Amino acid sequence: MAKGIKIATIGGGSSYTPELVEGFINRYDELPIRELWLVDIEAGKEKLEIVGNLAKRMIKKADLPIDVHLTLDREEALRDADFVTTQFRVGLLEARAKDERIPLKYDVLGQETNGPGGLFKGLRTIPVILDICKDMERLCPNAWLINFTNPAGMVTEAVLRYSNIKKVVGLCNVPIGLEMGIAKLLDVDHSRIHIDFAGLNHMVFGLDVYVDGVSVRNKVINLLTDPENTSFVKNIEGQGWEPAFIRSLGVLTCPYHNYYYKSRDMVEKTKKEAAEKGTRAEVVLRLEKELFELYKDPELTIKPPQLEERGGAYYSDAAVRLINSIYNDKRDIQPVNTRNNGAIASLPNDSAVEVSCVITKDGPKPITVGDLPVAVRGLVQQIKSFERISAEAAVTGNYDTAVLALTINPLTPSDTVAKQIVDEMMEAHKEHLPQFFQKVEA
Amino acid sequence: MAKGIKIATIGGGSSYTPELVEGFINRYDELPIRELWLVDIEAGKEKLEIVGNLAKRMIKKADLPIDVHLTLDREEALRDADFVTTQFRVGLLEARAKDERIPLKYDVLGQETNGPGGLFKGLRTIPVILDICKDMERLCPNAWLINFTNPAGMVTEAVLRYSNIKKVVGLCNVPIGLEMGIAKLLDVDHSRIHIDFAGLNHMVFGLDVYVDGVSVRNKVINLLTDPENTSFVKNIEGQGWEPAFIRSLGVLTCPYHNYYYKSRDMVEKTKKEAAEKGTRAEVVLRLEKELFELYKDPELTIKPPQLEERGGAYYSDAAVRLINSIYNDKRDIQPVNTRNNGAIASLPNDSAVEVSCVITKDGPKPITVGDLPVAVRGLVQQIKSFERISAEAAVTGNYDTAVLALTINPLTPSDTVAKQIVDEMMEAHKEHLPQFFQKVEA
Amino acid sequence: MAKGIKIATIGGGSSYTPELVEGFINRYDELPIRELWLVDIEAGKEKLEIVGNLAKRMIKKADLPIDVHLTLDREEALRDADFVTTQFRVGLLEARAKDERIPLKYDVLGQETNGPGGLFKGLRTIPVILDICKDMERLCPNAWLINFTNPAGMVTEAVLRYSNIKKVVGLCNVPIGLEMGIAKLLDVDHSRIHIDFAGLNHMVFGLDVYVDGVSVRNKVINLLTDPENTSFVKNIEGQGWEPAFIRSLGVLTCPYHNYYYKSRDMVEKTKKEAAEKGTRAEVVLRLEKELFELYKDPELTIKPPQLEERGGAYYSDAAVRLINSIYNDKRDIQPVNTRNNGAIASLPNDSAVEVSCVITKDGPKPITVGDLPVAVRGLVQQIKSFERISAEAAVTGNYDTAVLALTINPLTPSDTVAKQIVDEMMEAHKEHLPQFFQKVEA
Amino acid sequence: MAKGIKIATIGGGSSYTPELVEGFINRYDELPIRELWLVDIEAGKEKLEIVGNLAKRMIKKADLPIDVHLTLDREEALRDADFVTTQFRVGLLEARAKDERIPLKYDVLGQETNGPGGLFKGLRTIPVILDICKDMERLCPNAWLINFTNPAGMVTEAVLRYSNIKKVVGLCNVPIGLEMGIAKLLDVDHSRIHIDFAGLNHMVFGLDVYVDGVSVRNKVINLLTDPENTSFVKNIEGQGWEPAFIRSLGVLTCPYHNYYYKSRDMVEKTKKEAAEKGTRAEVVLRLEKELFELYKDPELTIKPPQLEERGGAYYSDAAVRLINSIYNDKRDIQPVNTRNNGAIASLPNDSAVEVSCVITKDGPKPITVGDLPVAVRGLVQQIKSFERISAEAAVTGNYDTAVLALTINPLTPSDTVAKQIVDEMMEAHKEHLPQFFQKVEA
Repeated sequence: MAKGIKIATIGGGSSYTPELVEGFINRYDELPIRELWLVDIEAGKEKLEIVGNLAKRMIKKADLPIDVHLTLDREEALRDADFVTTQFRVGLLEARAKDERIPLKYDVLGQETNGPGGLFKGLRTIPVILDICKDMERLCPNAWLINFTNPAGMVTEAVLRYSNIKKVVGLCNVPIGLEMGIAKLLDVDHSRIHIDFAGLNHMVFGLDVYVDGVSVRNKVINLLTDPENTSFVKNIEGQGWEPAFIRSLGVLTCPYHNYYYKSRDMVEKTKKEAAEKGTRAEVVLRLEKELFELYKDPELTIKPPQLEERGGAYYSDAAVRLINSIYNDKRDIQPVNTRNNGAIASLPNDSAVEVSCVITKDGPKPITVGDLPVAVRGLVQQIKSFERISAEAAVTGNYDTAVLALTINPLTPSDTVAKQIVDEMMEAHKEHLPQFFQKVEA
Repeated sequence: MAKGIKIATIGGGSSYTPELVEGFINRYDELPIRELWLVDIEAGKEKLEIVGNLAKRMIKKADLPIDVHLTLDREEALRDADFVTTQFRVGLLEARAKDERIPLKYDVLGQETNGPGGLFKGLRTIPVILDICKDMERLCPNAWLINFTNPAGMVTEAVLRYSNIKKVVGLCNVPIGLEMGIAKLLDVDHSRIHIDFAGLNHMVFGLDVYVDGVSVRNKVINLLTDPENTSFVKNIEGQGWEPAFIRSLGVLTCPYHNYYYKSRDMVEKTKKEAAEKGTRAEVVLRLEKELFELYKDPELTIKPPQLEERGGAYYSDAAVRLINSIYNDKRDIQPVNTRNNGAIASLPNDSAVEVSCVITKDGPKPITVGDLPVAVRGLVQQIKSFERISAEAAVTGNYDTAVLALTINPLTPSDTVAKQIVDEMMEAHKEHLPQFFQKVEA
Repeated sequence: MAKGIKIATIGGGSSYTPELVEGFINRYDELPIRELWLVDIEAGKEKLEIVGNLAKRMIKKADLPIDVHLTLDREEALRDADFVTTQFRVGLLEARAKDERIPLKYDVLGQETNGPGGLFKGLRTIPVILDICKDMERLCPNAWLINFTNPAGMVTEAVLRYSNIKKVVGLCNVPIGLEMGIAKLLDVDHSRIHIDFAGLNHMVFGLDVYVDGVSVRNKVINLLTDPENTSFVKNIEGQGWEPAFIRSLGVLTCPYHNYYYKSRDMVEKTKKEAAEKGTRAEVVLRLEKELFELYKDPELTIKPPQLEERGGAYYSDAAVRLINSIYNDKRDIQPVNTRNNGAIASLPNDSAVEVSCVITKDGPKPITVGDLPVAVRGLVQQIKSFERISAEAAVTGNYDTAVLALTINPLTPSDTVAKQIVDEMMEAHKEHLPQFFQKVEA
Repeated sequence: MAKGIKIATIGGGSSYTPELVEGFINRYDELPIRELWLVDIEAGKEKLEIVGNLAKRMIKKADLPIDVHLTLDREEALRDADFVTTQFRVGLLEARAKDERIPLKYDVLGQETNGPGGLFKGLRTIPVILDICKDMERLCPNAWLINFTNPAGMVTEAVLRYSNIKKVVGLCNVPIGLEMGIAKLLDVDHSRIHIDFAGLNHMVFGLDVYVDGVSVRNKVINLLTDPENTSFVKNIEGQGWEPAFIRSLGVLTCPYHNYYYKSRDMVEKTKKEAAEKGTRAEVVLRLEKELFELYKDPELTIKPPQLEERGGAYYSDAAVRLINSIYNDKRDIQPVNTRNNGAIASLPNDSAVEVSCVITKDGPKPITVGDLPVAVRGLVQQIKSFERISAEAAVTGNYDTAVLALTINPLTPSDTVAKQIVDEMMEAHKEHLPQFFQKVEA
């Protein structure tokens, strides 16, 4: 990396890209990016140009010597890259809308990374990511793969198990979001908050929370369950638990836990929202349209503030922080998805976990957790098994394995419903699931 | 045990007792019982006398020198006992009916050992069993506690964690029932079948199945999923799985798995049955009434065949087999609930598991299992956590802990529903849950 | 195995063979051997004929329809075999004499299976056994490999790690020898004794000992340390421990523990014996000469009683018992070397351990041990590491790895002495270590 | 700690104290010490005054508002302390001299923290440290115990297992010494070196070594084994390994590994040194005399440079760094002795290990190691078992347990020699081992 860093961003036409570019600009002093390659596929060409041109304007305004390249040629982008970031979406938001709509017909949660949606997003995404890994082996074997394509846990699991790329980190904005929420609850600056994270992607717990190094877990739980705080707590996404439950659970939850500990309510809520204003993908489709209209404006030279409403805030920023800490061997602590290696007892050593790590030039080193609390370790184990079997189905294209994955998912009400949903979604996503259909034809 | 064995049976007035007595009679040559003490509480006095007198007639007919004692004095029964068997039901079938009825109002499974029913049966039963353990420490410290009071897994867990009695075995008739079903499916004699069992009570899997020592697992799974067998398989309780699911699961399930892998159907089915013919407890209440009418007949000197319809067949027989193998150090293999000690990877070493064991005079020694299949280990872990936290709630009388236990149970749709059910059932079972209500008063 | 069993015995010209044949004759009713193939190499041809003809006479006298074949063609012997037993010695007793003599020059134990001798026996033997495994894959993929070639633990480890043969069991006569010694000490029949064995080959402990199922461990330890028993205990090989040590150790040791817990004395003793009457190999060479003279006698039709003085008594009998239990799915308990799979905590799951197992048609299933006693687990771990690294050196032919293996062995006084011994023994055994010398030439 | 920090230093009369004081002075800006209490016992009163007065002069010169208190009253010193550091020596250097001299008579290593010396230092020290812990529970329950009394691993193990003080950290200067040696070897500044440490106290390995975050492990091993470097490497204490050994070991060793991987040489060397210039304790006794002469000089107001020859350099500095990181929640990485909690696989979760940790206000959090290399994990396990059983002997005063501890130590040649050494040393140290002798009298 002598003369500066080469970044390849797969799915460069994403609406998130301006945040990523902003992050690189803000940290340029420490992180001397030389080339930023935004890659996309033919179908994303128009967006790539819009967002790519915004990126160029942003860098020009910052007056930095970063070359931005827009390309449909992945090989060219990957060659000698130092970091590869992935933020693509196989089948675009249209596919996500199906992940969300179809399960609801069966009174099952329709959501992007949990339940049937998580399974099918994985089935579409994993073969592509493994393909990228094969290219990386050839074109940039020393690069780090920074994945923030969802379902990030399942994708990291698949890379660890089914590719030769060992320098992979999965990223998520949930931990940072939780820290910000707690900072707001306690009315202290975010920088003074530290949370010990452990679990899986979208299934991560805050085992303890500190202000200036002093544990305030009990105080936080008291605040979260204090009736006087009800309206305030509602602003902290996903924290409206029964006091008896959260007091005895004793650890902090993430918003996605609502799908599991309030599963019935969440199905109802999701159905209602889908009926009233469309599924999340449908809403985002509209938001993105507006965003890209903004991006087109040749006068725009910064990340527009409207992007934060898109959801996924801090995602790209987390990626830049991570890249910075790897590049500069900062040995600071960040929660990422990496190989467990014994950090969390009773989860497989060779599985991906989301855990607070020391970030070094040699990658993330998990801080030892030991046993998860009794109350949560079963659910965590179950989701890990779901991820592993989903990844196996994605790689083998085995239909039975896909049905198994969905049946053991805690959001699925029966093996029969699992089979029905798999059948309908398999057909709906046929175009993006060649591993299942080529086999049938053979 | 020089001059013969003393057995104390807590809950001696149970309708199962004649099977137990029959088992002792049949194995008398190997297992020289000297005294059989049937103990019950005041409320069960009438039943105790009816079933106790039948027991005496059975032994007289068999012409064996076994003394049968009927008593309400537990201490007298326990003193110097060699084996203590427990088959009592706190709150009788009336309490079970509540365990079954109340959850259904919330569209949650109403069942004796799973979900809310399992929790509340545990909350009522565990303090009593721990009380018996304290008596045993004093009165018969060398005795074996053979528990077949449900929920047997949770009860064994509680004894291992919260008492000083280490010589405890939990027993269930599910494994033997599965062996019998498979024998029927394969049309071979039961004695030629062997199954490697591993998991938890009512959550046990057959990891492999053998005829004359040769694995026939794949054959069994093919038979179970062959459309030509549909009607036949239906006779094997709980085996009507989607072929894709069971093929990829690759291990044998027990009937209780239906509550988890067909949860929606089972709630519907249970509601329908409750509406049409009453809950299982209500049905059994009628059956038991008929049974006790039979038992009263002074001409009856054998276990009446109608008992097998009662459910729970082989339960008592399994207990006698187990006692026989312990007493005679038989070192044969039986599936029982015992301390894991590393036999099943990723479950706590100090927790109760249900696993194939070598039965010795020194107790059951689990045969090493290693890792459970990826697909099932999460659910097993989750149920174990439910059992542990339920046991903790039973011992501490902590309301929050009870809500936590029910919320993490996979059959519960939300923390709020968990709280509602806990509140209603706590009130309904108030009389048998002093540990929760004394505290409130204090 | 429809029409009877085919056995292939590699190293069939061994002096042990008559015991093996006697075992097959005694158990013929249960274990219908059809063909017994005794295989040896050209250098062992004469012995093969002598012992093979004795085997034929023994079977003729027993009037059994077992065909004994003598051959130098390993392929012919292996084809469609049901069980393959191995009892060969690469380099014959002459090589063993070097294993014993050379280390003594450096004041290091010279012994067949421990320290430098164990390493070099492994280096010579493992490539041959892996070659046999390759043949087995091709010629008898369903056969069981019953290995009693030493160092049996290291060899079993190598087969588990470096071959595709999973049906392998390592056997040793140490456990049965210990049981017999304890039976003598307690003056009870051997059949009433049971010991829970756990550890590694030649590093096995008796965690508990029972008479008729009742633990007598404390009694045994008291007897072993009672000064009145001194002369008697001396007859129980290897039991002359300091009372304070064995009382606090609390488990039974095997004779080989003397090399570790009395290492200085054993070096002295071995040196003295080597000087006075020759090393053990040299003694055995003379004994074998006498044995083979006996075997030549055409009137001899039984195993001559002198064989028992040879050492290794019960070895072949243990093999026949094991084969019988596998063939007949006996599910009895025998201590064998097999894959750990979690049975002994803190040893690798995929390593060979020596542990009490249930013997089934599907092979040995270890009975769960849990943690070894604190005092012994370190030494056991160290020997396992020595075995693993020795096996790695044997397979890779890497000189550095061989030096590492010997340096970490607890009997080696320094890395420099390790290197010196490796250098001298490597040269002395050059002919049988092609994996090291071909590389140097290449 | 609102108004500044209170430190209590047990063994305050130690010759190390000036380094500690220097450390506090240098870091005063971050670490506002208010009170420094130097405690000692009656026998150490004179030294305490000498060194205490030097401390006062040093602080006066630095013009800092730190109050130095000299006291023989431990209670007064501990009351409301924030940090308690321990650097005492039960029986003073005279006892250490016995630890070193007596074993040599038996041709066994005589050394302070390894083998018999380590055992007896533990037997003398552990009851005192547990006594301090009891005082801390009462007088300063929130304080951190920073132990650098040797044997630090065994002492930390004892505190974790046998006291209620959970806020304990064991410290050693070996890791920092290794880093400095490697920095010298590579000719780079110490601050650019990072080593991943894992193992036990005085049995710690450098699993990887980095310069500016880039692994240079292979380069370091090449340098250490390059014949051209021989003279240079000799300066790096304890690094003169056989190239074949260290290349295949693949990790960095610490000086104490010489006692195990060059045990014969080290006994010889130690005997020779003891004969020629006295044991280390005897040498240090002379050095200390000189040091205290220096300390008496009323003109001396700094740590005299001669202290660094004393050995134990950086020890006190490491303590101040650690206290600083805890106090300020620095979350930097330091190698310390703390509860394993799963960081190092196959060592007990509840044992003390020496491992790179993130240092927080909540204490050290180990960075996950996973499995130690195969070649070293056995020795590490063995030393851990030695430490545990030694600690048990120290607490129970059980003679047999002490013999067991020494027999299983890899430096002990036999159970009989173990007993002989225990007997002689027990008598020699009688005065400081009341737990063994009171029992005999009772």
